[in-house]
Formats: sequence, structure tokens, C-alpha cells
Amino acid sequence: MGQVASTDKAKPVSLKQVQITDDFWNYYINLVRDVVVPYQWEAINDNVEGAERSGAVNNFKIAAGLEKGDFYGYVFQDTDVAKWLEAVAYLLVTKRDAALEQVADEMIEIIGKAQQEDGYLNTYFTIKEPDMKWKNLTECHELYSAGHMIEAGVAYYEATGKRNLLDIVCRIADNIVDVFGDGPGQIAGYDGHQEIELALVKLYGVTGNEKYLELSRYFIDKRGHKPSFFEEEAERRGWTTHWNKNKIHIDHEYFQAHLPVREQNAAVGHAVRVVYMLAGMADVARETGDKSLLEACRRLWDNIASRQMYITGGIGSMAHGEAFSFDYDLPNDTVYSETCASIGLIFFAHRMLQLEPNSRYADVLERALYNTVIAGMSRDGKHFFYVNPLEVTPEVCDGRNKNFNHVKPVRQEWFGCACCPPNIARLLASLGEYMYSVKGNTIYSHLFIGGETELSLGGTNVRLNQQSSMPWEGTARYEVTVSQPATFALALRIPDWSSKAEVLVNGTAYSITDKVADGYAIIERQWTTGDTVELVLEMPVMRVRSHPLVKQNAGKVALQRGPLVYCAEEADNGPLLQRLMLPQDAQLEVAYDANLAGGLKVITAQALRLQLEQWGTQLYRTDSNVSLEPTVATFIPYYAWANRDKGEMAVWVKEHV
Amino acid sequence: MGQVASTDKAKPVSLKQVQITDDFWNYYINLVRDVVVPYQWEAINDNVEGAERSGAVNNFKIAAGLEKGDFYGYVFQDTDVAKWLEAVAYLLVTKRDAALEQVADEMIEIIGKAQQEDGYLNTYFTIKEPDMKWKNLTECHELYSAGHMIEAGVAYYEATGKRNLLDIVCRIADNIVDVFGDGPGQIAGYDGHQEIELALVKLYGVTGNEKYLELSRYFIDKRGHKPSFFEEEAERRGWTTHWNKNKIHIDHEYFQAHLPVREQNAAVGHAVRVVYMLAGMADVARETGDKSLLEACRRLWDNIASRQMYITGGIGSMAHGEAFSFDYDLPNDTVYSETCASIGLIFFAHRMLQLEPNSRYADVLERALYNTVIAGMSRDGKHFFYVNPLEVTPEVCDGRNKNFNHVKPVRQEWFGCACCPPNIARLLASLGEYMYSVKGNTIYSHLFIGGETELSLGGTNVRLNQQSSMPWEGTARYEVTVSQPATFALALRIPDWSSKAEVLVNGTAYSITDKVADGYAIIERQWTTGDTVELVLEMPVMRVRSHPLVKQNAGKVALQRGPLVYCAEEADNGPLLQRLMLPQDAQLEVAYDANLAGGLKVITAQALRLQLEQWGTQLYRTDSNVSLEPTVATFIPYYAWANRDKGEMAVWVKEHV
Repeated sequence: MGQVASTDKAKPVSLKQVQITDDFWNYYINLVRDVVVPYQWEAINDNVEGAERSGAVNNFKIAAGLEKGDFYGYVFQDTDVAKWLEAVAYLLVTKRDAALEQVADEMIEIIGKAQQEDGYLNTYFTIKEPDMKWKNLTECHELYSAGHMIEAGVAYYEATGKRNLLDIVCRIADNIVDVFGDGPGQIAGYDGHQEIELALVKLYGVTGNEKYLELSRYFIDKRGHKPSFFEEEAERRGWTTHWNKNKIHIDHEYFQAHLPVREQNAAVGHAVRVVYMLAGMADVARETGDKSLLEACRRLWDNIASRQMYITGGIGSMAHGEAFSFDYDLPNDTVYSETCASIGLIFFAHRMLQLEPNSRYADVLERALYNTVIAGMSRDGKHFFYVNPLEVTPEVCDGRNKNFNHVKPVRQEWFGCACCPPNIARLLASLGEYMYSVKGNTIYSHLFIGGETELSLGGTNVRLNQQSSMPWEGTARYEVTVSQPATFALALRIPDWSSKAEVLVNGTAYSITDKVADGYAIIERQWTTGDTVELVLEMPVMRVRSHPLVKQNAGKVALQRGPLVYCAEEADNGPLLQRLMLPQDAQLEVAYDANLAGGLKVITAQALRLQLEQWGTQLYRTDSNVSLEPTVATFIPYYAWANRDKGEMAVWVKEHV
Repeated sequence: MGQVASTDKAKPVSLKQVQITDDFWNYYINLVRDVVVPYQWEAINDNVEGAERSGAVNNFKIAAGLEKGDFYGYVFQDTDVAKWLEAVAYLLVTKRDAALEQVADEMIEIIGKAQQEDGYLNTYFTIKEPDMKWKNLTECHELYSAGHMIEAGVAYYEATGKRNLLDIVCRIADNIVDVFGDGPGQIAGYDGHQEIELALVKLYGVTGNEKYLELSRYFIDKRGHKPSFFEEEAERRGWTTHWNKNKIHIDHEYFQAHLPVREQNAAVGHAVRVVYMLAGMADVARETGDKSLLEACRRLWDNIASRQMYITGGIGSMAHGEAFSFDYDLPNDTVYSETCASIGLIFFAHRMLQLEPNSRYADVLERALYNTVIAGMSRDGKHFFYVNPLEVTPEVCDGRNKNFNHVKPVRQEWFGCACCPPNIARLLASLGEYMYSVKGNTIYSHLFIGGETELSLGGTNVRLNQQSSMPWEGTARYEVTVSQPATFALALRIPDWSSKAEVLVNGTAYSITDKVADGYAIIERQWTTGDTVELVLEMPVMRVRSHPLVKQNAGKVALQRGPLVYCAEEADNGPLLQRLMLPQDAQLEVAYDANLAGGLKVITAQALRLQLEQWGTQLYRTDSNVSLEPTVATFIPYYAWANRDKGEMAVWVKEHV
């Protein structure tokens, strides 16, 4: 009988240790395996008829000397290959697939041939502008691209045990270690698009090579100091942009380079860059124990989660710069809320959970995952939202194209700039990693997703078999198998959406009063094989209201049940959703609809709407009171919107008080 | 004792016949006389320190050979001089001013010297691109600029009896008659920016020369036919824009050239161009009796007034293209609602009133005048709104610059592109013209503005002395003086904002039941000197609601009293106007505030607002009902907004039903 030793650091239970058995999530994971990743491979090989040309694989072949031709695509086109390989790696963890692995190995061989003598790997610069390497970090994404390849190398190594890509990315990283720093002849700068920071910490994680961690810290520490590196760089090339001879305008906030990271108090600029940066900062804070960096992470987390986040877990409310705007500014219609930004927010939340397990991180992680992330992909795995509006009127998107060009009422096919689909793929393929952490003798269960998990606590092997009825019902059941009876704690998240939580251990009520810490119910006891824990969460339909400072939602209400945010669609409610009003006391009924988007629970309510038919032709009237008529309002989970005919959609509806 | 003969055509009582004595309006007219026009003269002479360079007068001097130098400003810079002269002319009608007239005469002399041998007059092309005349009507505003000079010439002739500018503009017009048409060697086209059409009808009006009317009709008839004139023109110059060698994109709807004018059913494209075109169409319909043209005017009027007009009489809801968007699309915050567009709408309404006196035209005319037009100018006459929002949050204008760059929370100083201020000046200086029409033996009183009017009905001279308490109280009193007792009708508009109208003739109730036709109470009797008519209009505070199809205003209410639309400002209500809710049954109190913007009536109401203080830091909450607290809401007339500190403003507020 063992007593598990306590350590300070939490760490995630890795993908290898988790086998997801959950129907809700396996649908998506299998979609990634069966549709998204195969499709992406064809797309980056330019084999999809009618799709935009990618050139990504061919660029590597050209750089490897295997093909003739010119570079094609964005300066960061290589990352499409990297993200594909990373997703493949995650898929191989949960299901070996020799054929897929061989395709990946062949790709990796080409990548190896494209790598320069000194470790440099970037097909754009190798093919097109070999003399311009590392000369425009502001705009050219070289470290960003390197970062994605490093993530792929680490993932592929962890999945297969093969060092083929890992060796390549170590050489990339070694080269970057040589090139960057404050030493003579080195570049004392950092990338315009953060990503390398978190990638280097992953590489440190598998190699144990501290210079990678140091370099990540270097990039983070350097960022935002004056004089501006981006300006120095611009000065050296005569203040032009990389793409033409126009004058460059450097908006330091866009790059989060307006202040040193520890002095930043609010999330500003390009949202994906913000959260990738914060993920890297949290990594470095965790690995180095840097308190001021942790403090900055907490501060920026709070700013995002309590002032700049949509109810769907979307972030970045402004299309211009794909950026955060300012506190409490969350327009539902001109919104950006890029799928990738929510994925980055999940990366950040996941890392904060390892730093300090607290349900506020997992609550947001869950919110982004169940709403924006899976809304980002259609049920066929072939159509994607880059922008995730909370209110759509197709007529407005068409008719006011200048302000709404970015907002699409239907999911789009794979793009030339294919950032979101592969990001969804790699997140979903690695979902198992997000479910549990272990800190000392406590196993934290962050997400309620059915699956088997094996882990080791001190000398004890623990197997947890979670069965979850979420997101439709509120029960998660854990069955414990231990190699020997052992005392440890199981910490179950009490989500922010649950009005009441009960725990049963071996079928008997287990009081969690005084046992909830940082949002987790801590069940510490001696466990033996066959023990079961049930977490029963009340999952009523909730009326959610926004902080009154959110101008756009004042007087409005949104419905949420469990982790799922709901929305009203034209398909159910007819057009002109602005007419809908939900009485504060309306009964909200929940019913299962097996036919919509794979089956889901629908909410209906006796509601009101502004009378239209008797209004007449006058644009303005002063001769009548407001005339409301009864109607049935129907709400479906936000993730399932836009799976029927193109039409209006709204998350927030007027409340009739 | 005469019986006045009936004729078919209505015509406005001219500016010469009206002397405004109304305090409310004389403030604005005197502001134009004492501040705007003198300031504008200094501005177009580049004598205002710190102001943007104009170059307008200097361009004429260069073209006249009196100065050396290069053309400066927009291709339509000449129109600033033309509109200044037109405003001067109107001011001289109501108050002779020898010094001002001398300045104008000197300017006209320079203009004469700048005119080419063949009558052509446009300093941009004369100075800069003499070989490019009439080669790019799509973009270069040549006929538009000519039109403004023609309007000035007509106005100056009518004001002073001098032919100096009239002769110049007749030569301009004669040249245009030669250049344009379907004959050999002629240009079979029309201008990108309508204006010449209405100007030519004015010139026809004073000269009686039918070729001007014919040419106006030609431009109107030609517009929008296929093959596209703009495309033919583009073809001839190789599809470049005039300004550089970039490819031109011709959006025919922007220019209202997508369809022949008689086939257009909805107002589309640049709003000012639409209403200038419609004014010209109404002119030609009136002068030629063209029924199909009148039908098109009515149809487009209806589209604008019942589907595309803000409650303030603003039109053009889209910044992109300064344009109409689509039916019922009236966003309050990203609005355009250019001051010039409302002025153009007044021009159009005024002409429709002569075609068919009907209060629907005068109601809109009044709405635009009392709200958007005078909101466009500050009380000091030196600051102007080009864009007239119905909802402003300064933080949003700053923080979301890309979508809100055009929306200013405070009035701006004179611009380089100074279209709106001189347009306000010429409208207000000629306001007398808009008050009455005569049709047959009926005098129509469209606007309730105090003043003396002299007119002739058949052989009878009639003098009407109107005293009006509007816009603050609802009484207009007319005293009649006649050269001999005569039978004729006085038609008093019953405005759409009046809940009850009573008429007293010589102090005795006069039943207007069955006497209201097309929105006018027709009082037909024999009149003798000393007769008085009082029109007493109930002027309650009205709760106005929008058609339910107006997405942005659903569930909201605006207050209006008489012709004045009201708004809530931060100065009275504190920030965060989104929190305000006006109960449907709230008592609305009206009180006079002598200190605000020259004195005005304020509306206050016992209202509610969303509780803020007890909300806490959470962005979303599910654990409380909506919490409302009592507050006093204060509303001031929209025209007077932004005369205090920069802050929020909203016309439409939530209604608590």
C-alpha cells in the first residue's frame, strides 16, 4: 500500500495515457482522422480539384532539389506541412497506422533534404530570397514557421519514438540559438508572430536541453523593450515593408511589442499572437519558477476572461488586425473571434492549469472547446469558419460588404491561408492531453469526456475509466483501478455552469462541503480497484447576462446548458430574429432532436415577438404601443449552427423583463 | 373683388417675396451671414491660419492668368467658390450689402477671365490637363462643377439683377449644349455626379431658353442605358482611373447608372448623387409634364422615405461609397447620413411639393431641416458634422477606427473637401424659398416659420404675416393683408407629428373636418385685410418606434416633440447609455432650459437602468435576475447634441414594456 509523494509542479496526463471512448468527441476526432487530415494532405499536395493552390509540399521538394519551380504561397506556407505532421503524430498515438506513418516519414525525408547545412529551414527564403534570411522578423514569420516545425518534431517523436523529424528540428533550434541573442554578431530580437516560444519549451521538454528553454525565455524577456527591435530592423532596410517598397507602419500593439511582457496589463493586438505568447510565457514561468512572468500571465488571463471574451470563448472582437479592441467591446455581428484564437486560448488555459490548477482556466478551456472550436468545423469535416460571429444576418453580410466582408454566414471550404482547419485538427487529435493533470498526489479531472486513462502516482499505477453523459446530461462516472490500494486525491472540476454538484463514492453520497478548492472537489481517500466516483451536476438551462458595460448585450440574454451556449437560428424561428423577445419567466423546455447535426438537445420557450404583419408601410410610427405576439422560440447549441440553410443566427436575444 | 384663376402648376414663393422674422431660424440665418459666409471667403482665399489649404480662389486667378502657380485641391475645387457665391446671392436678397456685393462682383470678374473662349470653365482642366477635358465624366465632376456655377449664376442674377455671372454660366451651358448629345462628334454621356440636371432647369427658368431644359432631360434620359457610357469612356482611355494607372472599377449602382432612371425602384449608391438626380428629375417632370419621370420620382421617394431614411431625415446608411445600403438597414452607429444628403433630400422634397402638394414631402423636408441639417453646424457656425450619427460612443469611434473612422463625436473644423458647410450655408440663406407654394388659387404653407410674405394671386396682392411658436409650441398664426377682398384658399400643412389640429379663423373655431386634402387643411373663403388664421397643433412628446424590419431599432423607442427628434446625451445621463430603459408608461415632462444651445426644451422621464455597481467583475453571470434601478433620463433635441463635452449620445433607447 503506497503513499504517493507530493511534488510542486502539475503536469498534464499525456495523450499516450488517454484513450477517449466518448461518442460526442470521438465523432470529431474520427472526422479529423478520416476526413480532415487526409483532405489536408491532398490539399497541401495540390491534388484537390477546384481548391486554391497550396504549393506547401512542393515548396519543400523544390527547396530539397527534388523539383524545379518557384516557391508558391504565403511566407509561412511551410507551417501547413508542419501542422499536418503534428496532427498525424497525435493520430498515430491513439491509433497506429503504418501507411499514414510511411507517408509522414517520406515527407519528413523531403523536409530533411530541404534543410540547409547550418540547420536553417524555411522554403520561402531558401528558394526565393536566400540573402534575406532573418532580416525581417517583423513581417516574415521565420521563427513562427520554425516553431510549428519544432512542435511537429516533438509530437512525431513522442508518437512514434522516431528521431527523424526531432533531429531536424533540433538542428533548426540549434541554428536559432546561434543566430539570436545579445552576443556579438547575433540578432537581439524576436518574431512578429509568437509561436517559437512555446515550441522551444516543448523541445526542451523532450530533449532536456536547457538552451532551448533559455532561448524561449530570451525571446519573451526581449519583447517590447525600447528601443524597438522592429524599428531597428526597419531602419536597417530603409523602412520599407518586405512585400514592396512602401513605407512600413509598425503598430507595436499589433505585435504585443508595445511594452515588455511583464508590464502589459491588457490583451491588445492580434489575438492569436497574444495567446500563443501567453502560452509560451506560462511555459517559461512553469519551467523556471519566474514569479513576475506568472503574475503577468494571471493579469492578462483576467483581462481576457473577464473583459474581452465572448460567451462562446471567442476572442479578438475586431476584424482590423484580427485583434482585441478594448475592454467590454464585444460586438456580436462585426466580431472576429477567429477559431485559431480560441484554440490558442485553450493552449494558454491548459498551461495555466499546470501552473495552478484552478477551475477558472478549465471553465474557459471548456467554453472555447464546446462552442467556438467545434462550431469552426462542419459536421462533414470539409467546411470551416475562420470567423465565428454571434449574430449573423446574411443580407447584412452581403449588403454591407465593407464592414462584414470577414463574416460568412456559411462555413467555407479550405482556404489558401489555411490556418484554422489544421489548428482544429491538431487540437482535436490531441484532445486527450487536455483532460487530466497530476499534481503531487492529486489527479485533476478538467474535462468530462469519456475515456480510459492510465497514470502513475508514485509507485502506484492508476487507471481511471471515465464515462460521461455530457454535454447532454450532467453525470460523469469514474471507475478506479489501482495496482495496489493507494491514498491519493481525485479532484473533480465543479464547472461554473453547474448550479449544484453532488458526489457519490461507491454509490454513497460523499459530502463535498468544505472539500472544494479552486473550483475542484477534492476526494482524498484510499482507493482500491473497483471504486467508483460519480459526479452529478445539475444542468438547468441558464439565462446568461453580460456585464452591463458590454454595450452590445445590454438588455439581452443568452441561453446556456452545461458547457453549451445556445443560439436561435432562422431555420427554427423564421427570419428577423431582432423581433424575438424572451420573457424573463418563460418556461424553457429541453428536448432531444436526433436529426439535427448528429443529434442534440434543443431548447424551446414560449416567447414573444414584435408584431410585423399589422405594422403597415410606415417606417416610423407614433400612433401605437408596442405590439407583441406569442411565438415559440427555439434554440440549438451554438456549435451546431449553420448546418441547415443559410439564414440568420443570434446568440443574444432581447429579454422581456 | 377678384376670383383667382386656377392653373395646374404649383410654384414656390420665391426668396425675394419672403422676409423671415422667426427667432429660431434667424439665429441660423444670421450665423450664415455673419460667420459662415465670411469665414468661408477667408478659407477659400487661404487666409485662415491653421486651416487646410483650399486654393479655390487662387485656382481661378491662375486660370485667369492673374497669378502664377499650379492648381490646388480636388478636381471639383471650383464648386467651393460657386457655392459661396450662391450663398452670398441669397443673403443679398434678404439684405443688400454693397461691400459684400463688390467682393462677389470682383470674384465674378476673375471667374469670367478664367473662362475659355468656347465657354468652358473648370480651373482644374484649364490649368492642369487642358487636353483631358470631357474625357472622364465618370470621375472628374466636370458637369457637376459646371452645375454649381450655373446655380450661382442664376441666384446672383435673381438677387442683384446683374447678368455678370449669368452671362458666364450661359456660355458654360451653351458650350455643354454643343459638346453633349447624340449628334456627330458629340459626347453621348452624362456626369458621374448629378447636379447639372437641376442647374440647367434653373437656368431655363430665368432665361426661358428651352435648350437648357432639353439638355437636362437628355442627361436624365441617357443615364443608365446599356451599353454603359462609363464603360465606353473607360475603354477609350484603357480602363485606368483618372488619378493613376490603376484599373478602374466601375460600380454602376454607385452612380445610379445601373438602370435607366425610369426603371429604378430603390435608391442605391452615393446618397447625395441620388437626391440631386431626383431633384433634377422632378424639375424636368414638372417642366415637361413627363408622367413616367414623375412616377419614377414618386417611387424612389417612397423607397427612401419609407425604407431608407433615419428618423432624423438622414439618408445614406453606409460609409463605404457614402451610400444607401438596402431597405430597412439603418445602423445608428456606423451610419453615414451626410449633411449634404439631407440637404439634397430637401431639394428633392421641395420640388415634389411643386409637382403635387402633399404633406408627405413637406413632413420629410421639415424632419431633415430641423434635425440633420441644423445638427450639422455648431452654434458658433465654425464647426460641422459631415456624418450625423444617431448613436455615438467616443471610445468606440477611437478604438474601432477602421469601421468608425468617419464618425466623429464632435463637430470638425472646415475641411479640405468642404462640401457640407457651404451646402448648409446656401440652404439656410435661401430658407424663405421653402416656406410657401402657390398653386392656382391656393397658397400652401409648408413650414411654420415666422415671416412676412408677399405674393400675387391673379390680380390680387396678398401679404401673409406668419407668427410661429414652433418648434417649441404648436401655434402658427397668419395675418392676411389683401389689395382687395379676394376668394382663395390657404392650405396649412397638418404635420405628421401633430396628434390634433385646430383652426381658428378670426378667433373663431373653423372646422377642418372634410377639409384636409393631401395633408393640408384647405381654408377657402373670401379674405379681407386683417383676417387671421390660427393653426393650433397638439405637440405632445411622442414615442416613436421603427418598423420591425429595422433590425437596429427593434425594442427601442425614440422621443419626438413637434418636428424635433430628441436624443440622450452623456452630459445629462452619465455614460453607458446602453443601460437606459424607458418604461412604456413613463411620464414625460417638458421644461425649458435657457442655458443650453441658445435655449431649448428638455424632456425628462422617470426611467430605469441596468444596475452596474453591484454586478461585480464577472463578464457573464447566470446567478441573478436583471437588476434595474430608477433613474431620471434626460433628452435634448438632436440638433443641439455635441455642444457640451465629448460624450455618448443615442437617439434610440431601449423600451421597457
